[in-house]
Amino acid sequence: MYRGHQKTATGHIMGHEFIGIVDQVGSDVNRFAVGDEVVSIFSPVCLRCWYCKQGLTNRCVEGVAFGTQKLDGGQAEFVRVPFADGTLHLVPEDLDRSLLIMMCDIFPTGYYGACRAIEGLQNQLQSPLTSFHKQKSISNAQNGDTNGNQALDALGSSVVVCLGCGPVGICAIATARSKGIQTVLAVDSVDDRLEEAAQLGAIPLNFSKHDILEEVKSRTQGRGADAVIEVVGNPAALKSAFELLRPCGILSSVGFHQDDLPFTGLDCYLKNITMNFGRVPVRTVFNDALQCLRENQHSLKNYVTHELSLDDAALGYDLFEKRVARKVILQV
Amino acid sequence: MYRGHQKTATGHIMGHEFIGIVDQVGSDVNRFAVGDEVVSIFSPVCLRCWYCKQGLTNRCVEGVAFGTQKLDGGQAEFVRVPFADGTLHLVPEDLDRSLLIMMCDIFPTGYYGACRAIEGLQNQLQSPLTSFHKQKSISNAQNGDTNGNQALDALGSSVVVCLGCGPVGICAIATARSKGIQTVLAVDSVDDRLEEAAQLGAIPLNFSKHDILEEVKSRTQGRGADAVIEVVGNPAALKSAFELLRPCGILSSVGFHQDDLPFTGLDCYLKNITMNFGRVPVRTVFNDALQCLRENQHSLKNYVTHELSLDDAALGYDLFEKRVARKVILQV
Repeated sequence: MYRGHQKTATGHIMGHEFIGIVDQVGSDVNRFAVGDEVVSIFSPVCLRCWYCKQGLTNRCVEGVAFGTQKLDGGQAEFVRVPFADGTLHLVPEDLDRSLLIMMCDIFPTGYYGACRAIEGLQNQLQSPLTSFHKQKSISNAQNGDTNGNQALDALGSSVVVCLGCGPVGICAIATARSKGIQTVLAVDSVDDRLEEAAQLGAIPLNFSKHDILEEVKSRTQGRGADAVIEVVGNPAALKSAFELLRPCGILSSVGFHQDDLPFTGLDCYLKNITMNFGRVPVRTVFNDALQCLRENQHSLKNYVTHELSLDDAALGYDLFEKRVARKVILQV
Repeated sequence: MYRGHQKTATGHIMGHEFIGIVDQVGSDVNRFAVGDEVVSIFSPVCLRCWYCKQGLTNRCVEGVAFGTQKLDGGQAEFVRVPFADGTLHLVPEDLDRSLLIMMCDIFPTGYYGACRAIEGLQNQLQSPLTSFHKQKSISNAQNGDTNGNQALDALGSSVVVCLGCGPVGICAIATARSKGIQTVLAVDSVDDRLEEAAQLGAIPLNFSKHDILEEVKSRTQGRGADAVIEVVGNPAALKSAFELLRPCGILSSVGFHQDDLPFTGLDCYLKNITMNFGRVPVRTVFNDALQCLRENQHSLKNYVTHELSLDDAALGYDLFEKRVARKVILQV
């Protein structure tokens, strides 16, 4: 919308990430009162539909992103929040206030991307469909704990690639490292993003300077990555994610893809691949993601680079477009 | 190869499914002796490579299907079995001998297709990434067991579609029913296959007579299937599998796909889909699949429709091509 690729009407209000103070409450709202400080999820969550009850809040039937044609966003003095009981959270304690905006979308998205990858690897290491683990435990019960520890060790020594080190990628990298993945390869072409990734304990790889496939293979005895987190959302990144994976690898994609898939059915069959696509159920992972952000808040304290007045929003967009700003907060 | 789509040399020996008696053993073989009755996996398993050690025996670096240009098959008086300790199993007890041939490929493939779908649903119901289950248990410990039961109930009441009711599909349906899935919708266009599926407790749906999407929606309050097992291996089946799934559904594909994927990156993103592709690690699931086959052997006793002499192999192929035969065994 900022770049004009997507038309918007005059008076359209942008902004899917916002925090604020409750000014009025509707008659169906039970969890909030006027004056509460709250953080909003990027899309309403009704908590009533089948998906919400399951915990699949990313597919809430009432879900529609703030700041789109269908629902006014948060870059304004006031914003109406539908289904507030599901959509809002009280501002949590023990979190650097400047990082709070990350809980609307970016941190949960990166957290989910990383956790899907890790969960996929964990399942693979423990499932009787893909490991001998269970059979060993059954036939040799006294080794049960040893096998459990071995599986955990194997998980920690998995090689995980994060494709893209922009805001979401950095959150995914922080999460993967927090969850015990020792080798996280961070891929981007922007040096200061890669430096940020390195500070979080990832191995930075600039794809304009290195052959990433060779780098991954050299660290995996020629196999390829155990899992790839893809946060970019374009076909080149998705193709690269596929190619970097070893057979039976896990592809966790949270990028917003709009094109054809850059691999075939034969590729998928021969790689025995597992793939997850799509957006995060923020409401479902909120507390766990928040805890992870708390643990990483010291490393991410430079994440928000600019705080501007709402009147200077255009400047903020310009700084971001020029990659001078990482994350800009607009204050009312 | 039978139809001539794939060229083979004169003297090529077909057959990736075979059972027999050990006639000679190589010097590296420890588990078998001359005279043992054995059943072979469709592709050698070395048990030494990284993939085999993990349990990902479907991607054994020595894996190459019997009966291809690279490795002679079992439709002969003798067959050489590489890596016999990993590739062969002693003929198990308590199994109808006529069903033994199913353990080479077809039953484990169907078993794996069904179990991947069920495992995906189980993970979704229990993971803190996609359910509120864990959070509830933590905040309200006395309800832990209740939540566990609820998850199990929810799994059993999931709606699972099996696309294709040929030999592999029937095995997948038998597995899904055995694992407690109450509603399995079996889709095919051949009436006697559908009847076989119905006898296993599935709901038969002939896609040449019914609107399958409407049938699925009518059973899921309009949502779509929770999981689809796709065993056919062509783009039409894969497209249908995708379309039949609800958002956040699980696609378990064991069909051999060779074409482009019939859905886009945007489709995947918007559906928040999880997909598994590829062949079964037979060696890894062998014992569990065998147990499941044992439990179902009474229902599958008509599975092998013809036993012919090896000299009549051409007749067997002809009967199968005409869909008169379901499964043909060639005897030496």
